[in-house]
Amino acid sequence: MRWTQAFIPTLKEDPADAEISSHKLMVRAGLVRKLTSGVYTHLPLGLRAIQKVERIVREEMDRTGALETLLPILHPCELWKESGRWDVYGKELMRPVDRHGRECALGPTHEEVITDLVRREVRSYRELPVTFYQIQTKFRDEVRPRFGVVRSREFIMKDAYSFHEDEKSLRETYKVMHGAYTRIFERCGLKFAPVHADSGAIGGDVTHEFMVLAGAGESEVVSCGCGYSATLERGETAPEKPSGKGVELKPLEKVHTPGLKTVEEVAKFLKTEPSSLIKTLLYEAEGETVAALIPGDRELNEAKLRRVLKVDLMTMCEAEAIEKATGGPLGFSGPVGLEKMRLVADPRIKNVKNFVVGANEADYHHVNANLERDFKVNQFADLVVAEERDPCVKCGKPVSISRGIEVGQIFELGSKYSEKMGAMFLGQDGKERPFVMGCYGIGITRTVAAVIEQNHDSNGIIWPLSVAPYQMEVLPVNVNDETIRTTAERLYEELTGMGFEVLLDDRDQRPGFKFKDADLVGLPLRVVVGEKAMAEGKVEIHVRRTGETMRASTDEAPGRIKTLIEEGKVS
Amino acid sequence: MRWTQAFIPTLKEDPADAEISSHKLMVRAGLVRKLTSGVYTHLPLGLRAIQKVERIVREEMDRTGALETLLPILHPCELWKESGRWDVYGKELMRPVDRHGRECALGPTHEEVITDLVRREVRSYRELPVTFYQIQTKFRDEVRPRFGVVRSREFIMKDAYSFHEDEKSLRETYKVMHGAYTRIFERCGLKFAPVHADSGAIGGDVTHEFMVLAGAGESEVVSCGCGYSATLERGETAPEKPSGKGVELKPLEKVHTPGLKTVEEVAKFLKTEPSSLIKTLLYEAEGETVAALIPGDRELNEAKLRRVLKVDLMTMCEAEAIEKATGGPLGFSGPVGLEKMRLVADPRIKNVKNFVVGANEADYHHVNANLERDFKVNQFADLVVAEERDPCVKCGKPVSISRGIEVGQIFELGSKYSEKMGAMFLGQDGKERPFVMGCYGIGITRTVAAVIEQNHDSNGIIWPLSVAPYQMEVLPVNVNDETIRTTAERLYEELTGMGFEVLLDDRDQRPGFKFKDADLVGLPLRVVVGEKAMAEGKVEIHVRRTGETMRASTDEAPGRIKTLIEEGKVS
Repeated sequence: MRWTQAFIPTLKEDPADAEISSHKLMVRAGLVRKLTSGVYTHLPLGLRAIQKVERIVREEMDRTGALETLLPILHPCELWKESGRWDVYGKELMRPVDRHGRECALGPTHEEVITDLVRREVRSYRELPVTFYQIQTKFRDEVRPRFGVVRSREFIMKDAYSFHEDEKSLRETYKVMHGAYTRIFERCGLKFAPVHADSGAIGGDVTHEFMVLAGAGESEVVSCGCGYSATLERGETAPEKPSGKGVELKPLEKVHTPGLKTVEEVAKFLKTEPSSLIKTLLYEAEGETVAALIPGDRELNEAKLRRVLKVDLMTMCEAEAIEKATGGPLGFSGPVGLEKMRLVADPRIKNVKNFVVGANEADYHHVNANLERDFKVNQFADLVVAEERDPCVKCGKPVSISRGIEVGQIFELGSKYSEKMGAMFLGQDGKERPFVMGCYGIGITRTVAAVIEQNHDSNGIIWPLSVAPYQMEVLPVNVNDETIRTTAERLYEELTGMGFEVLLDDRDQRPGFKFKDADLVGLPLRVVVGEKAMAEGKVEIHVRRTGETMRASTDEAPGRIKTLIEEGKVS
Repeated sequence: MRWTQAFIPTLKEDPADAEISSHKLMVRAGLVRKLTSGVYTHLPLGLRAIQKVERIVREEMDRTGALETLLPILHPCELWKESGRWDVYGKELMRPVDRHGRECALGPTHEEVITDLVRREVRSYRELPVTFYQIQTKFRDEVRPRFGVVRSREFIMKDAYSFHEDEKSLRETYKVMHGAYTRIFERCGLKFAPVHADSGAIGGDVTHEFMVLAGAGESEVVSCGCGYSATLERGETAPEKPSGKGVELKPLEKVHTPGLKTVEEVAKFLKTEPSSLIKTLLYEAEGETVAALIPGDRELNEAKLRRVLKVDLMTMCEAEAIEKATGGPLGFSGPVGLEKMRLVADPRIKNVKNFVVGANEADYHHVNANLERDFKVNQFADLVVAEERDPCVKCGKPVSISRGIEVGQIFELGSKYSEKMGAMFLGQDGKERPFVMGCYGIGITRTVAAVIEQNHDSNGIIWPLSVAPYQMEVLPVNVNDETIRTTAERLYEELTGMGFEVLLDDRDQRPGFKFKDADLVGLPLRVVVGEKAMAEGKVEIHVRRTGETMRASTDEAPGRIKTLIEEGKVS
């Protein structure tokens, strides 16, 4: 492809709205353009990289025996009501209404649609296991789209769904998919880690996210030298050893704390530490009001609470609901006197005696509240957001928190969808039972961004060979010099003829300008046809990743390039 | 691919809602399943055919120098308001509202989005011409989805857009695209004709539809032995020679026609022919009320009227608007006394004297109305729907009307969009001017249906080799017979190893059942491994299209198949 015909609108300046390197570089190198918030056009160069990733994904999916299909984007709301997700999914689900007034969903994920297909078409255990996949545009109306295609409202995803007669078969396929995902991301040139994760609105209990390690990633990972790793939503850490042993329990007392609502304000006023307070947080969980108790210096992890309560839908109570449930206003809730409510507490509150808690009354707190004596807890469970240096839940050593980009996630769904949607098959024993399901997603466009996030320098992208839009660029420094131009053209033809994907920078521009663009676009190899080397009948071969430069005669150059690639010198 | 792992849910019975062969066969052969009205899931076998068509389209588009991109499905309404189509497109445009209350469109076509991209990125004539294309899911909320994927609400389309400095350059690219389309449909094994067409909501004047001739098609084509062909919307025919010459003009008279509204009723009551009446049809055309006059025995062609009036938006007047404009009720409109209104007439009304027309008064008609004497017409233009045996507009011989499926359409748009959206470039003379544009669409899913509509018999599909999901099927008649099974497996491995796409029917089913499915799925070649031929060490090679059957030894069979294909004996 000739640059003059390729439509690669490179930019010198970073776009104003770009925060992370991959976003900046994807715009500057002419891979994408924003149409509107969270919605991007993929330009020719960017689309080529996407198609490379898609090819790798297809090859690895086909290798597992998964069958490629294409499910509709437009879903009837009835299926989402059957699964119960019509109410759970919230505003992220785009819901157009058709000309007949029927509500639809734009598919953010396809569990309902594939379960509907399978319940109609698959009757017997003999037809199981079966796995379907598709590569398709998905929609999620993100509250805050950002980071370019990393968190966008319209994106390309590979999603796969497996159907099994039992958990054992599901676990086998889950393992196969885990392996396929590992190969896919390795082939894309990514450094990544599979981490335990939360299943969110998808459901199921066992799930891994494939996390590309990147300082600018928006996901946080809890990990430990012992091998433990999990997303922040999922990540557990051990409570510190109890330190309040032997402390004398003082009598419960109600104190006036006028206008003080935050933990910091109350602690300061009462001359104590935030860790001596208990936060009492009220949630509406599928019809029940529940209180979660955590130490005053920690944050509640809502995903953990949702798992403990075993609910999909859970929202923090607003002032009115709090008043109705506790008798007191927002900001003054506390466990004392809430006998009728279900209280779930983080075990870390066991460590402290003589707590400060809200008194369920405006401008009042209790001091010297104590577990068991003044209030009882129905259930203890890890509820807080893990923090750097918390003890590892596995080995007790301090964990670290790092950042990453989630490029894939795999789920053991079990029979959540099949039960709700009545998707049954005849088992070997002649009895009907619900399908056991797994699902497996990869963000295709996000993977391209992750590749760039991990493979760039201050000058531009450093494409891995496997996903580069073109494998190499031929760069004549001056197209008005007849020898240079014809040599470059000949090399371009020869390399293209050898089956390589080659970009020829045939623009009539100054060498400096062309070199800058070459670094920015970042193809793995560059063949420079310049005056100096040409005087000796040679061209320069430049490896983008290593910066290595070597000279070869124009005749030998193509063979030299072939060898470099075959011997893995260009990765 | 083994049938037992391929998910090909064939059906014996036609689906109840299918009217045409391609729809019936696509469901029965396990290519598609309906999710909801006009929305289909593409199953593995169907998707393979789609991908074959996509590959052909990509190759031919790339060959023209068009650049593949991927534009968003979700469009901000602002762009559609700029082009004016937000109001024109009507209910076919799906308009989801996002979480922030912003109106969006689900792209049915992408003129606005690509024009917005080009106006931002292209500055100079030096960068022209440039053509972009994409293969993408599109949405049109059809009032009556039918014929399976032929008229669906969600479908895959290839759309391309070209940008030029002048009309000359546009015409060159239009011709190149015309050629590419011809090659694409030829390669898909289709018999088709490019016909003059109406541009509808897209705009522009010169446009061709590529029509696959099929008795069950929903489009109608006017054609003549002389080479003239056009869609029914576009198709002109010549008026008959005037026959009313020398007829005496009688005096205009108002007659009582109580309760008679239809042409037939009035003609019968007045003892004359429908052709002696003039129908006066009132339209609201972008703010102006216009009357169209046509002979009583013809139908108005709204597309023609819209072109004559040069408007995008035109609706038939309702009773109230008619009363306001003419003073009379619906059903009694006539041209006499409508001096203030613009009257457009079909030239066929010149043929008759002493017309019957509505009197713009309840229950009254005028008889003996005559052109020029009793009313004047502002403009004459062909306004009627062409009918079989009308004289050809080119040669005068009778035309014929046939049916087809529109698989592609190409348009010379001119500067309709670029002017409305302020998309300008600097010309060679240093002056700013609007881009001249063309656009070019192919219905990918519809093309697959058209292939089947033209290539089937009573037993099933007859795939052309170029788009067949697999090129051949190996059919062991009895998988429990060791010799048969191992021979079939060996042939399957060998043919696959030769680079062919092979389906092995490894199901433990009766031979009759497997043969029926093989005919239904309709792969070009079938290799039958049966008892009789095997006794002589032979297998049977069957060509689906011709029904030809030949025997070859198991060793020779693969070579024989290769030769058949290479020599074009299988098409």
